[in-house]
Amino acid sequence: MSMVQLDLVEANKLAAGANKKQVKVKNGFGSLMGSKEMVEVDYKSDSNMDYLLMRDEEERKRFESSDPTKRHISEQPYTLDNWYQHINWLNFILVVVIPGIGLYYGLSGKVPLNFKLAVFSLTYFAMGGMSITCGYHRLWSHRSHGAKAPLRLFYAFFGAASVQGSIKWWGHSHRIHHRYTDTVRDPYDARRGFWYSHMGWMLTKPNPKYRARADISDLTDDWIVRFQHRHYIILMAFMAFIFPALLAKFFFNDFKGGLVWAGLIRVFTIQQATFCINSLAHWLGDQPFDDRRTPRDNWVTALITFGEGYHNFHHEFPSDYRNAIKWYQYDPSKVAIYVTSKLGLSYNLKKFSQNAIEQGILQQKEKKLNRERAKLDWGTAVADLPAWSAKDFEENLKKNPNLIVVSGIVHDVSKYYDDHPGGETLLQASLGKDATKAFHGGVYLHSNAAHNVLANLRCAVLEDHLKQAQLFAARRGETAKDFIRK
Amino acid sequence: MSMVQLDLVEANKLAAGANKKQVKVKNGFGSLMGSKEMVEVDYKSDSNMDYLLMRDEEERKRFESSDPTKRHISEQPYTLDNWYQHINWLNFILVVVIPGIGLYYGLSGKVPLNFKLAVFSLTYFAMGGMSITCGYHRLWSHRSHGAKAPLRLFYAFFGAASVQGSIKWWGHSHRIHHRYTDTVRDPYDARRGFWYSHMGWMLTKPNPKYRARADISDLTDDWIVRFQHRHYIILMAFMAFIFPALLAKFFFNDFKGGLVWAGLIRVFTIQQATFCINSLAHWLGDQPFDDRRTPRDNWVTALITFGEGYHNFHHEFPSDYRNAIKWYQYDPSKVAIYVTSKLGLSYNLKKFSQNAIEQGILQQKEKKLNRERAKLDWGTAVADLPAWSAKDFEENLKKNPNLIVVSGIVHDVSKYYDDHPGGETLLQASLGKDATKAFHGGVYLHSNAAHNVLANLRCAVLEDHLKQAQLFAARRGETAKDFIRK
Ligand code: HEM
Ligand code: HEM
Ligand SMILES: [Fe+2]
Ligand SMILES: [Fe+2]
Ligand SMILES: [Fe+2]
Ligand SMILES: [Fe+2]
Repeated sequence: MSMVQLDLVEANKLAAGANKKQVKVKNGFGSLMGSKEMVEVDYKSDSNMDYLLMRDEEERKRFESSDPTKRHISEQPYTLDNWYQHINWLNFILVVVIPGIGLYYGLSGKVPLNFKLAVFSLTYFAMGGMSITCGYHRLWSHRSHGAKAPLRLFYAFFGAASVQGSIKWWGHSHRIHHRYTDTVRDPYDARRGFWYSHMGWMLTKPNPKYRARADISDLTDDWIVRFQHRHYIILMAFMAFIFPALLAKFFFNDFKGGLVWAGLIRVFTIQQATFCINSLAHWLGDQPFDDRRTPRDNWVTALITFGEGYHNFHHEFPSDYRNAIKWYQYDPSKVAIYVTSKLGLSYNLKKFSQNAIEQGILQQKEKKLNRERAKLDWGTAVADLPAWSAKDFEENLKKNPNLIVVSGIVHDVSKYYDDHPGGETLLQASLGKDATKAFHGGVYLHSNAAHNVLANLRCAVLEDHLKQAQLFAARRGETAKDFIRK
Repeated sequence: MSMVQLDLVEANKLAAGANKKQVKVKNGFGSLMGSKEMVEVDYKSDSNMDYLLMRDEEERKRFESSDPTKRHISEQPYTLDNWYQHINWLNFILVVVIPGIGLYYGLSGKVPLNFKLAVFSLTYFAMGGMSITCGYHRLWSHRSHGAKAPLRLFYAFFGAASVQGSIKWWGHSHRIHHRYTDTVRDPYDARRGFWYSHMGWMLTKPNPKYRARADISDLTDDWIVRFQHRHYIILMAFMAFIFPALLAKFFFNDFKGGLVWAGLIRVFTIQQATFCINSLAHWLGDQPFDDRRTPRDNWVTALITFGEGYHNFHHEFPSDYRNAIKWYQYDPSKVAIYVTSKLGLSYNLKKFSQNAIEQGILQQKEKKLNRERAKLDWGTAVADLPAWSAKDFEENLKKNPNLIVVSGIVHDVSKYYDDHPGGETLLQASLGKDATKAFHGGVYLHSNAAHNVLANLRCAVLEDHLKQAQLFAARRGETAKDFIRK
């Protein structure tokens, strides 16, 4: 039967959103903190994405040169002549220079911090941070729930205050990260080291060869997302710096303090915290659900990221509105989403079934045990034993009388007489015989340990008793391939 | 092929030592603390044990009555008329009355305890206790090592001081305990409750129906064992009570104190501690090696029994000279045996291989995981799915278009559109098609969690792709029986 195969090229286009009309949202600055080369997806063409995919192809060809100096900058080594070309200067200003100015004024004591200002900055920090985790991440990137317009507006405004790019850009690269985790297409590819996944990826220019796209038509369908993207630069500047400064002036007449502490330094802090999800959460911690990929669970990351630290869980169950599932794990974002749902501001909170979650934990434990299992000596597998006929057995017995049959398998006890806790006499009496019943309770119901010792004495399988031997081995936990003869 | 079967009756006779000439050791008191009915094995006949087995049979017949009053006392209920017949009065005196007298004199303050006497009593306690654990138990009962005559003499003398019967009697019932653990033949059958396994078994009369024997010819071959058995009553009385009293008189002129504290009370203590191995060690603690039988590991028992508390290990690896294998576990008896070997007093210390030990731990863990596994829903096993031909598939598709094939298995995604973290579009595009490659990386390399969710959408297997489906299921950890069709 020839099944109709799903066309992979077409399917990949769908996954990249290439079937959808691109929504035109004019504003180059929405992808601030991204990299133009990577995310410039939506304002060159008003038809569909085929055009963009074609352009990618052209660009790829353009840099297909064996001359190192003609390759794309990301493929050239750093030299004194070209180092500045490697750098994404816009991002450099946004995540290094501006926060740096803030830190200078703040930490030098030039702009002092008092208790009131600290409380205000922290509150502003939390509102911006939670807008990223609940809004940008769990709502928009993962559709883990729905939210009404007022809440979405809140997330859009305070999310902009965190200076991490527009929802549209953030959601796009985040979806790419999930789909291509730990591959060259993963924008924050953790395999390239802590520093790269933390900030390096945005401070340098990425290789256009590995450009990837994801369908974000559901995001561009949201007028709030479009609105935020369109007016991102002004929204960001206002919400991140001017608004907190104005508020500080209004409440305790400290414009400068508000600008530096609730503005610049707060932005630095929330940026660094968010970056930790790409670095620390792929680097430090446990892997209770699956260890084939880098994401890890750890409470340190959770603490500084409003609960996003249970990242091993999150990559397995991305559309679950929770990141932490145990009561003692810290996940305020989950709580916030839950509370907004009770207030009628959000709805349709998605959860993976408890069954699926426990399956993952169990399989990961099994995997670890299987690794331990592989380190031990389980005796020759039935499939690898020579198969003896009744005659073979008789003949071998003449050469070596120390043979005992248990469950269709022949065991050589030459070296076991002195070690047998049940004594030498019973082994002697069993030589050349089938002692299956005696071994399995007729004389003594041997322990599990005895079965293991027994397996290490194997020397052949009786071809007339093959099935018996296979079942015996299977019951002992030997795997299919250990008892099925080739 | 018809293998020569080991004759079970003959083998059981061997295990009971019935092939050996019984060594005549005259002294009825060697089985003090046993029960005559149970261990009176060796001074009625000087031929072989067939005679004894025959007598057992006769006795069994004698009590084969439907009249309750004619049954053996152990099969009759307790009444006001017969209760005293249930009791083994000799043992009652030895483990209740005599220690009771000691406790009365000691605790009432009539015979005071001072520091010197306490140190002396504890020392004597330890020498007697270690003679039981290292000598009676690990050396003689389990042959876990060999020991030279001076050490054996020490164990025989100080073992007698602990008032637990002769080596011969002790070793015999202990071997029966190991061979018949948790069965009616187990002298201290832990299934009958804490109290029974602690002292009840020796204070009441056992049922002769369940009499068991073990080969102890290696013990009766040892002149020291014979000597101790022959002179047990006098040795016991002297070593347990008179000698400590004399020593106390000699060192600090306190005969009475020595008698009560280093004699009676010490005996009570060491008896109770030893009894704990039969009760507490089968009742409290973990089962890291195997949980099919009652023995358990726990450090409390270890603490009061010179290291015999790692009883789950011990029942799996009885001839290992160690009971504890981790450095932080308390097993002074193991250390003592090791030290005597370095002094040349013992030799041939047996150990099970580290491989066998780790195998046991691993298998027990696997067993626990398998129990967890059974509680979860893994989707319909391949073997239990209806098998569809290409035509069946086409027809079913007409009734329900929401079918996607992955790895030879048909999945119904009707209810999954909204939940798919990868979006509805890709599922739609895959309907009625084979999406195997797309699912396995062609579009997205799905997580382990996704595989579990997928399995719960199964509705049929394609008969032309059965093998593919089976391999897929096997890789996911489904067991042989789940993918092999009946
Ligand atoms: C052929 C390989 C054999 C191996 C590797 C083996 C292994 C062992 C082991 C490890 C024990 C210690 C207790 C336990 O772990 O359960 C044991 C005890 C014992 N075995 Fe075997 N055994 C073998 C064959 C036999 C046969 C053929 C018989 C009987 C005909 C027998 C009778 C006994 C008895 C009576 C005990 C003593 C139980 C006790 O006192 O604790 N064994 N054996
Ligand atoms: C038929 C049953 C399917 C199930 C049960 C399923 C399940 C899942 C799950 C649980 C995820 C979340 C990420 C993960 O756990 O790995 C996911 C993501 C995804 N799936 Fe599926 N899937 C199915 C079919 C497909 C098909 C046929 C395609 C492609 C043609 C596809 C493409 C994707 C993509 C692109 C993602 C997004 C990755 C991301 O952004 O994190 N899925 N799927
Ligand atoms: Fe991640
Ligand atoms: Fe995510
Ligand atoms: Fe025991
Ligand atoms: Fe033992």
